[in-house]
Amino acid sequence: MQRPHIVILGGGFAGLAAAREFREAAVDVTLIDRTNHHLFQPLLYQVATASLAPSDITVPIRWVLREQRNVTVLLGSVMSIDVARKEINLSDAVGAIRYDYLVVATGSRHAYFGNDQWERHAPGLKSLEDALEIRRRFLIAFEHAERAVNPVERDALMTFVIVGGGPTGVELAGTITEIAHKAIQRDFRRIDTSKTRVILIEGGPRVLPGFPESLSARATRDLEHLDVEVRTNSIVTKIDDHGVHIGNEFIASSGVFWAAGNQASPLAADLRCKLDRAGRVLVEPDLSVPGHPEVFVAGDLAAVRRGENDWVPGVAPAANQEGSHAGKQILKLIRGYKTEAFRYFNKGDLATIGRNRAVAVFGGLKFAGYPAWLLWAFVHILYLVGFRNRITVLVQWAYALATYQRGARLITEAENLASPVTGEWEIPRP
Amino acid sequence: MQRPHIVILGGGFAGLAAAREFREAAVDVTLIDRTNHHLFQPLLYQVATASLAPSDITVPIRWVLREQRNVTVLLGSVMSIDVARKEINLSDAVGAIRYDYLVVATGSRHAYFGNDQWERHAPGLKSLEDALEIRRRFLIAFEHAERAVNPVERDALMTFVIVGGGPTGVELAGTITEIAHKAIQRDFRRIDTSKTRVILIEGGPRVLPGFPESLSARATRDLEHLDVEVRTNSIVTKIDDHGVHIGNEFIASSGVFWAAGNQASPLAADLRCKLDRAGRVLVEPDLSVPGHPEVFVAGDLAAVRRGENDWVPGVAPAANQEGSHAGKQILKLIRGYKTEAFRYFNKGDLATIGRNRAVAVFGGLKFAGYPAWLLWAFVHILYLVGFRNRITVLVQWAYALATYQRGARLITEAENLASPVTGEWEIPRP
Repeated sequence: MQRPHIVILGGGFAGLAAAREFREAAVDVTLIDRTNHHLFQPLLYQVATASLAPSDITVPIRWVLREQRNVTVLLGSVMSIDVARKEINLSDAVGAIRYDYLVVATGSRHAYFGNDQWERHAPGLKSLEDALEIRRRFLIAFEHAERAVNPVERDALMTFVIVGGGPTGVELAGTITEIAHKAIQRDFRRIDTSKTRVILIEGGPRVLPGFPESLSARATRDLEHLDVEVRTNSIVTKIDDHGVHIGNEFIASSGVFWAAGNQASPLAADLRCKLDRAGRVLVEPDLSVPGHPEVFVAGDLAAVRRGENDWVPGVAPAANQEGSHAGKQILKLIRGYKTEAFRYFNKGDLATIGRNRAVAVFGGLKFAGYPAWLLWAFVHILYLVGFRNRITVLVQWAYALATYQRGARLITEAENLASPVTGEWEIPRP
Repeated sequence: MQRPHIVILGGGFAGLAAAREFREAAVDVTLIDRTNHHLFQPLLYQVATASLAPSDITVPIRWVLREQRNVTVLLGSVMSIDVARKEINLSDAVGAIRYDYLVVATGSRHAYFGNDQWERHAPGLKSLEDALEIRRRFLIAFEHAERAVNPVERDALMTFVIVGGGPTGVELAGTITEIAHKAIQRDFRRIDTSKTRVILIEGGPRVLPGFPESLSARATRDLEHLDVEVRTNSIVTKIDDHGVHIGNEFIASSGVFWAAGNQASPLAADLRCKLDRAGRVLVEPDLSVPGHPEVFVAGDLAAVRRGENDWVPGVAPAANQEGSHAGKQILKLIRGYKTEAFRYFNKGDLATIGRNRAVAVFGGLKFAGYPAWLLWAFVHILYLVGFRNRITVLVQWAYALATYQRGARLITEAENLASPVTGEWEIPRP
């Protein structure tokens, strides 16, 4: 009798957690990802601001699972899921992969509320490529400002707009302003980087809407202390080559970054069930797909109820827990047991502002300032997969703490030539 | 009276060394590079083999020179040099940069002995982009081999050919074979990476032709001990999609890497003087351009005589010394003195084989094996610019020494989709 074959789509937090559940089981597992690495997304904003290198927050998936001999990792892009035939089709393959059980953990991408044409002007922050694009625009802006002669152009180059006041936006804004105002001033001769404007735009009444109000207020104060202009109750109506429109107001900026919305991976449509407004799969309490008890969804792709009116947030601990739960339920099914409902244990929320401040909620207790930041750093180092990465990131943070310097400020030649800033420049006289 | 304006083209070893000479001088310096970073080329092969990350061996040029207030660093691509008008033209600029003195330190690129069409099939190793392209092909080859069903295809994917037996080729071959045979075996299920073939092709009678014969022999033995096939007196006659031709012999490989020849930056032609066969500038003894005593050439771009029949090699210490010399001569000219001839002090030669072996010559003394490797590591750490980089690289090496693991094994989604390996794949059964 052939062993059950479980296919896992996605090597993020959810996919890896699911795979690990099968450590001791007499099953075959195939995990497919379109990249070769697991990405530690909570620190992606640090790659975007050149504070960490991509390899500091990634680890090869097959290295993580190397000792689990029943798992085969394949690099591939999933084209479609056929839930009737129980098959996966890859985009570059002849033939399909059959499964007995399936875990779909392909995550989410950023969304522009129906304005996909904004993506060209305002990159989001979900994948490594996103982070490297933001980093490129961030670094190139100052390089071009140093050469600019037209002051209007220079001001636009030294204005950064972050759309979205959730943790990602807050963390991005805090880091950008700190680097501009403290780390790189002496590197330039013609521009005064302390005059850089950083504007954080949030559609609702407060930043960090998922946090207690007092911590939102604290985060706002900390951001303003770092010279970030925090604009709440402001909806972006248009983004183009020149900047951002908030109703009638226009802000000229060549560095607009999107941290405002997510949409689910398009594979969700193949599961032939109800999706929520963001395209996430409305799963059963045990995380399975309605009508297909052998198919589970975990991570950002799953819309999981929490209580009456609430949903489990799209954060890393939730993805971890959902992935583990999906794996455990599959083992139950294989052994002939009933499945159980998923329960999310919210261990706490964290958001960092700059290099040594943060706000945090843990077990009902609220933290802010430096103690919160220490907690944040500890938790993130703990969750980072891979000992080498932990050491490397610790070294980078220690260095940044001591010197304000950021280590990964890299523009390659191709990145320079690919600049979105077009037109010809005058040469400033020495 | 306006201060003399010195323009330096290139932020590599030579350019930076030249810039530093003007620390205390009443001059204005403009340094232009087409990237924003200084690259530590001796360790580029480690980025190519995913052992180090790009940011481990780079440092922003303007950060290095931040305390030198008389230096302005500009990101730009030089289109042409007008030695008659004493002007530099940038490719994206209106207007030109005038200079009183010029240091051209734009380096070299790899050369294919007139067969530029080979570049597509066999990337070289001079810039970060080169290293990342080699890395991509290296990592993707194993990923595709894991999915391959056709054994002929799989063997070609697991065959790597390095063309060129100088230090770069030797270092690349030694690292690739070690990673394939020792570091990643447990990461794969369907392929046995210890069966990877690594072939080093050298046109002359021995590898490391610039080293004493006994050390060439030692390096060859060490490479063969690591299962590298060392082929001397072998000239590559053709490289295409499928592999490499050596006369009538054909080696099927999807991973051919070029470490065999260099040619000078094309800007040399603007200097209107004699060039050698590789396009390097035949400089005067003081490193100036014949007919233009205010223009100096330093680094890989300069063809500098050493004795009757010898030339200064294109290595980092030589570039450092030439850059410093050029800077010093310019200061002499400004102060009304005569210039002096350049003298190269060969501090020694080093090449590493694998992660703990090397061959080295210092002050006439020859070293091999582990002591040579320690010396190599010490010298490279010393020359690395930037304290943070030194710590990071030390950590990476310590980790690799302890575990054989390499930290920077990254394939992004774009890199996966850009794979040169085309065609459709069958899905192996679990």
